[in-house]
Amino acid sequence: MQTPWEYRYAHRMQKMGSSVIRELLKLTEQPDIISFGGGLPAPEVFPVKEFKQACDYVLEHFGAQALQYSTTEGYRPLREMIARHTSRYSVPITPDNILITSGSQQALDFIGRLFINRGDYIALESPTYLGALQAWNAYGAQYISIPADEDGMVVDELEKALRIGPKFIYVLPNFQNPSGSTLSLERRKKLVELADKYGVPIIEDDPYGQLRYEGEHIPSVVSLDSTYRGYKEECYSGNVIYMSTFSKLLAPGLRLAWVVAPIPVIMKLVMTKQAADLHTASFNQYVAYEVGKGGFLDEHVNLIRATYMERRDVMMEMMEEMFPPEVHWTHPKGGMFLWGIMPEGMDAAEVLKVAIQRKVAFVPGASFHPNGGGENTMRLNFSYSSPDNIREGITRLGVTLKELLKKNGHQQKLARELVG
Amino acid sequence: MQTPWEYRYAHRMQKMGSSVIRELLKLTEQPDIISFGGGLPAPEVFPVKEFKQACDYVLEHFGAQALQYSTTEGYRPLREMIARHTSRYSVPITPDNILITSGSQQALDFIGRLFINRGDYIALESPTYLGALQAWNAYGAQYISIPADEDGMVVDELEKALRIGPKFIYVLPNFQNPSGSTLSLERRKKLVELADKYGVPIIEDDPYGQLRYEGEHIPSVVSLDSTYRGYKEECYSGNVIYMSTFSKLLAPGLRLAWVVAPIPVIMKLVMTKQAADLHTASFNQYVAYEVGKGGFLDEHVNLIRATYMERRDVMMEMMEEMFPPEVHWTHPKGGMFLWGIMPEGMDAAEVLKVAIQRKVAFVPGASFHPNGGGENTMRLNFSYSSPDNIREGITRLGVTLKELLKKNGHQQKLARELVG
Repeated sequence: MQTPWEYRYAHRMQKMGSSVIRELLKLTEQPDIISFGGGLPAPEVFPVKEFKQACDYVLEHFGAQALQYSTTEGYRPLREMIARHTSRYSVPITPDNILITSGSQQALDFIGRLFINRGDYIALESPTYLGALQAWNAYGAQYISIPADEDGMVVDELEKALRIGPKFIYVLPNFQNPSGSTLSLERRKKLVELADKYGVPIIEDDPYGQLRYEGEHIPSVVSLDSTYRGYKEECYSGNVIYMSTFSKLLAPGLRLAWVVAPIPVIMKLVMTKQAADLHTASFNQYVAYEVGKGGFLDEHVNLIRATYMERRDVMMEMMEEMFPPEVHWTHPKGGMFLWGIMPEGMDAAEVLKVAIQRKVAFVPGASFHPNGGGENTMRLNFSYSSPDNIREGITRLGVTLKELLKKNGHQQKLARELVG
Repeated sequence: MQTPWEYRYAHRMQKMGSSVIRELLKLTEQPDIISFGGGLPAPEVFPVKEFKQACDYVLEHFGAQALQYSTTEGYRPLREMIARHTSRYSVPITPDNILITSGSQQALDFIGRLFINRGDYIALESPTYLGALQAWNAYGAQYISIPADEDGMVVDELEKALRIGPKFIYVLPNFQNPSGSTLSLERRKKLVELADKYGVPIIEDDPYGQLRYEGEHIPSVVSLDSTYRGYKEECYSGNVIYMSTFSKLLAPGLRLAWVVAPIPVIMKLVMTKQAADLHTASFNQYVAYEVGKGGFLDEHVNLIRATYMERRDVMMEMMEEMFPPEVHWTHPKGGMFLWGIMPEGMDAAEVLKVAIQRKVAFVPGASFHPNGGGENTMRLNFSYSSPDNIREGITRLGVTLKELLKKNGHQQKLARELVG
């Protein structure tokens, strides 16, 4: 390098680390790989026709406003629509409880910027969402890992963690990324009580809540907090910051998500956003409102559910058929991800190397564990690939797993013979 | 408040301060105020028809990609288009020298995040762009103010500042926001030499470079740095980070801007962006590329120039006619802003209070001075209001100024009489 750029930001970069998501997004661009690695929605369910009509309508009627600068909070009719929608789930909120962000990742970043001092602890499920770790690593966060099972965070283990004094608790209660687990109603209630007892706020990240393929809807943590506090008509001012997104319901390429929080928190987030990017693209907000305003989303989500449920079922059937009996997996009731568990001692990163040669990919589970562990786990996405590709990809992966298990078995046998 | 939210982020908020821009954007929403306060482009020049065609085309041909997640760096054809465009101005760059950001504000934020440690100094013109101060205040920056005149930063004063050891120099060389000044060629060359001598990088913020209404184009600082270093074919790796935007050429409601920098810097900015919001909206990048790819921007900029030049001329003629002789102003050769200077001792914030009663607004100049001063100055935007509104607004402002000057004169006379 001609100029000493690297010295100028060395201090900043130590913890920015991993670019796993980015590298994986690149991997999925190779057309001959069947990738269960990314977290992409199926492009087949993008409502392209509705977008086209909405773009035309917005440019015809609101061109001057939709292409202009706008306020940081977000387009008011869109916030009103989200408030109406959220209120259906027993959370009494007004548009002033809502900030529109440029994707959920931005909400995670702002929450980190607002709350995290270098060295602060965050209590979270392990495994947890990689994007949250990437956002908060940049602010020097440390993590208290709470174990999780198919019913989500083992909340009985949380109280011990809360005595360490985390800045907040981060939880993905519905069809969690990466594990596919769903936090049970009982645990949600206990979580709300414990958080209140220790005065620790909860960040509830809910990108997939509406993508349920079986079982009953479980009330969100924010609505349980609202009930717990006895809110009825007044606007929400409890202990939870709730996040959701249009990325899974409409399209991620719009970069549109939202935060629900007590008004004083929204005001601080607005100031943060003003300094960070002024506001989320006005045009996108107008278009999303036009697409959604007539109740289209309620209808559209049925198409998404049907599409993803079929793909989940195909994946699970194929795993049943093709995977060796030593490998287990979760049974997610919704969302976009399955979680595979190989025998202890197997390394998913090594499996991935062989799998890529066979033109199939996934994400090794270790990346989702901020404090280590999970080397024998893997995240498999079922929303993006067609059923045929899922069949072919799981077949390839099954062959890979069987081969590696056999090799491992041979090596262990050999080791035993050498020792014995 | 029911929960002690404010204690949780008190540490973060001390320097996030001012929300002047936001409040002003709100002010401009009142329909009966003639606002010279905002920095808004004229909606009349938004190429709505071209946007409509582009949206249709993109959704027809690239729906699956344009609505999907994409890579953090930005849509490659768009980066190629920007690289070709920039190369016309003698800066040898490749698409890998470019990062697409969600507006220039995001580029300012990322630069702050990457380079600024709490307490670091930044050398900049005073007055300077308010959005940069807001972005960098959040990271605890301090400022070394360099005086400026109609030829921009007084670069002779810079060397003394560079010995203090600023992290970088921030400069808006063309039709500066807020003052309308343009850095002379001679000063640009001196700036490049001094920055090289002291090993301090330059952030060149150039949102208005193409909006010149008179005189000759002056080479950008990044191109002079390139020449100074003798780069010809190889890709740029010099001392300057250059920023520009589609907000003034196309429409700010898309939130599309870009950074040109040495590749190692772009790589760090990409990692920063990945953690901050994954990527800028894919759809907007596809649409901007479709609008711009056939050379439309070169044609469209002529319409913008003609529109804004007329408005600037009307404003200056009206000021000549209506303003009291004690008030002076700059003669910007391009851009969107005029800078008014009232007699010492007059307070623009007080003038604004009276002006708002007369339904006309501007921004008091003190906000643009990070280290104080400029209380007697005001920023006037001429791009947003129609010529008729400019005539009416400047008339109202002229009456206000004359009235307040007279009152001030009376008070001073009275004070002299009382003392004498």
